[in-house]
Amino acid sequence: MKTDQKYIEGGVTSPAGFKAAAVRAGIKESRKRDDLSLIVSDLPATVAGTFTSNRVKAPPVKLCERNLIWGQAQAIIINAGCANACTGEQGFQDAERMADLTASTLNIGKNLVFVCSTGTIGIPLPMNKIESALPGLAQALSSAGGAAVAEAILTTDLVKKEVAVTVTLDGKRVTIAGITKGSGMIAPNMATMLAFITTDAAVDQRSLQDCLRHAVDHSFNRIIVDGDESTNDTVLMLANGAAGTGLLQKKHPDWKKFCHAVETVCHELAIKIVKDGEGATKFVTVTVTGAATRHDAHMAARAIAKSPLVKTAWNGGDPNWGRIMAAIGYSGARIEESRVNITFDGVLAVQGGKAASGSSLKDLEAVYAKKEFTVAVDLQSGKGSYTAYTCDLSQAYVSINAEYMT
Amino acid sequence: MKTDQKYIEGGVTSPAGFKAAAVRAGIKESRKRDDLSLIVSDLPATVAGTFTSNRVKAPPVKLCERNLIWGQAQAIIINAGCANACTGEQGFQDAERMADLTASTLNIGKNLVFVCSTGTIGIPLPMNKIESALPGLAQALSSAGGAAVAEAILTTDLVKKEVAVTVTLDGKRVTIAGITKGSGMIAPNMATMLAFITTDAAVDQRSLQDCLRHAVDHSFNRIIVDGDESTNDTVLMLANGAAGTGLLQKKHPDWKKFCHAVETVCHELAIKIVKDGEGATKFVTVTVTGAATRHDAHMAARAIAKSPLVKTAWNGGDPNWGRIMAAIGYSGARIEESRVNITFDGVLAVQGGKAASGSSLKDLEAVYAKKEFTVAVDLQSGKGSYTAYTCDLSQAYVSINAEYMT
Repeated sequence: MKTDQKYIEGGVTSPAGFKAAAVRAGIKESRKRDDLSLIVSDLPATVAGTFTSNRVKAPPVKLCERNLIWGQAQAIIINAGCANACTGEQGFQDAERMADLTASTLNIGKNLVFVCSTGTIGIPLPMNKIESALPGLAQALSSAGGAAVAEAILTTDLVKKEVAVTVTLDGKRVTIAGITKGSGMIAPNMATMLAFITTDAAVDQRSLQDCLRHAVDHSFNRIIVDGDESTNDTVLMLANGAAGTGLLQKKHPDWKKFCHAVETVCHELAIKIVKDGEGATKFVTVTVTGAATRHDAHMAARAIAKSPLVKTAWNGGDPNWGRIMAAIGYSGARIEESRVNITFDGVLAVQGGKAASGSSLKDLEAVYAKKEFTVAVDLQSGKGSYTAYTCDLSQAYVSINAEYMT
Repeated sequence: MKTDQKYIEGGVTSPAGFKAAAVRAGIKESRKRDDLSLIVSDLPATVAGTFTSNRVKAPPVKLCERNLIWGQAQAIIINAGCANACTGEQGFQDAERMADLTASTLNIGKNLVFVCSTGTIGIPLPMNKIESALPGLAQALSSAGGAAVAEAILTTDLVKKEVAVTVTLDGKRVTIAGITKGSGMIAPNMATMLAFITTDAAVDQRSLQDCLRHAVDHSFNRIIVDGDESTNDTVLMLANGAAGTGLLQKKHPDWKKFCHAVETVCHELAIKIVKDGEGATKFVTVTVTGAATRHDAHMAARAIAKSPLVKTAWNGGDPNWGRIMAAIGYSGARIEESRVNITFDGVLAVQGGKAASGSSLKDLEAVYAKKEFTVAVDLQSGKGSYTAYTCDLSQAYVSINAEYMT
């Protein structure tokens, strides 16, 4: 596939016809920065979304799932500092009210408003603070507001995460951009992770939904920080057509170019989450090939990327591949121990299930001393493969999470 | 059931007819203490065993599984410092040789020798050191040697773990005793965990195997330190009949008393492992009741006990029950969020899936400040229940495991 796709500086307000703003509503006393954000499209946009698979789902997630049925969105209201999860009937009323207040402030239909919350579980939203802050938030909307929102949605993240690309589709220059937050509770199937993607292309809703689901499955669902999955994970994508393209859909000649651009944005955002993982000092790509099936590869990669023993060895720069073998062994994947090969950035560590002859501890330590490396496992049992992106487990992870709530 | 069971001081040489010894063979240079141990019964004993479910199995585990088929054992040779796992064909030859050397030194049949190894994965056993140390080890055998073995099998453990009970069976005073090691890589289905249980009762082999499997399922398989499972886990139990009982088996009137005593020994040993968990500062019992099935209860309890976010909150003394709700939600257990109740040592934290009215953060913090407490989850969806024993996740866990190998 040929594409003229290019990275540009920017975020969710880079595509034409989007505005955004963030203010400090004071949702969590101890948080001394913006915590309430709004992303608005000038016109109703086609919307796609994917949500947490956790059976404990926050009310705003349920609201988004319901509104997604209509296929259109014009505004996303987002708060940090409080997840509005495990808040019972009050939580649903509050999520509804957040949508209603936003709709009346913007003078749009309430089914066009999507609501996202992130922060501590089990505490009700301070609705009076949100209500007081909304008029000022709406007034602050601007086409330069994307960066402020990228900051305001963060919780324990250290850096803001924005990606934008341009590509020619249907003869028009189109922009696709996104922002995300999340650094703890990160696991496949998305976890305390929010991402918002905007484009000024015009896109058929079903096609957009399939495109987004595929992109999420190859990006956000492949990252692991700690194996915990949250109650609030949401990825929303809005396509408003402001670039003047015809309606893109699966049979359009530029469809693959479009999907490729969406995948790029999702992939880059996902990588940014892992690199900003709580306490992370190393970025590790885990690839499993030669598995009996893709599912076996997935299980093995996930077990390696989740193992506290493997992750602490990465942290310590200790090329203890025995822990990787043990993780593969208990992963549930069908493997033959004597066929397993493992390389670290191409340096053979394990051959046929045991220490590779000819590889020195020094060479392996040199790889583990890097900030980024790849652990490649070949099970030599089939054609299934899978890639996961993860980080090490450091003492800082523990201190961050031992002190987060109170 | 009435029993006159009593705890006594002692370990594997407390039952009549058992001797043991430990020496320093120098298997791992940096280890400045005994690392080679022998437990011997005066006469061939009935043996039962349970082993790791990891698909990557160390050669000594496979040797034990094979010898278990004969149903009898007279000696267990155990080394620390090297797991003899992921060592290929050489590893099998070394495990066999360890058994052969022990058999010829003791002048017993080689199928009566069981071999256990624990330590670093992927490094071959220094067989010359083991061979040199064996004669001295055999000479040192004594009926007071149990405590020395309890010390010599330890790796990152901080304290030795012995339990002994006496109980009257078939009119004779019988002793049942055990030792164990393990403090990292601890998860259900046993992980870098070795346990050796001896008794001077005479027991039918099939009955002993069933009794041990049940006891292990309710003890060692319920403890979680970090969720990793090892390649070498082994529980072996020897019953030599030296107390002069008739053959105990399932239909014997004292069978339940016997099994109860074995369960007591396994349970106490398992609890000792968790309390000595790598970096552990708190001992937490997680009970799940009211689950749709026992399997659902198991999944929920395991997800809570494994969650790094839950465990770091325990470490920080932060009663952040939202993380427990999230873990229940992603556990795979079939739950209804609005029916979930959670108590901490009887203090209601969550009622109907949200913060319990009337419970204060102060009361919850008081529970979390304790060294030991119970997290009780009632799913109100059925009659399935499960209990897991676990500990917190501390910065010390990370530093221990970041520095272990090299």
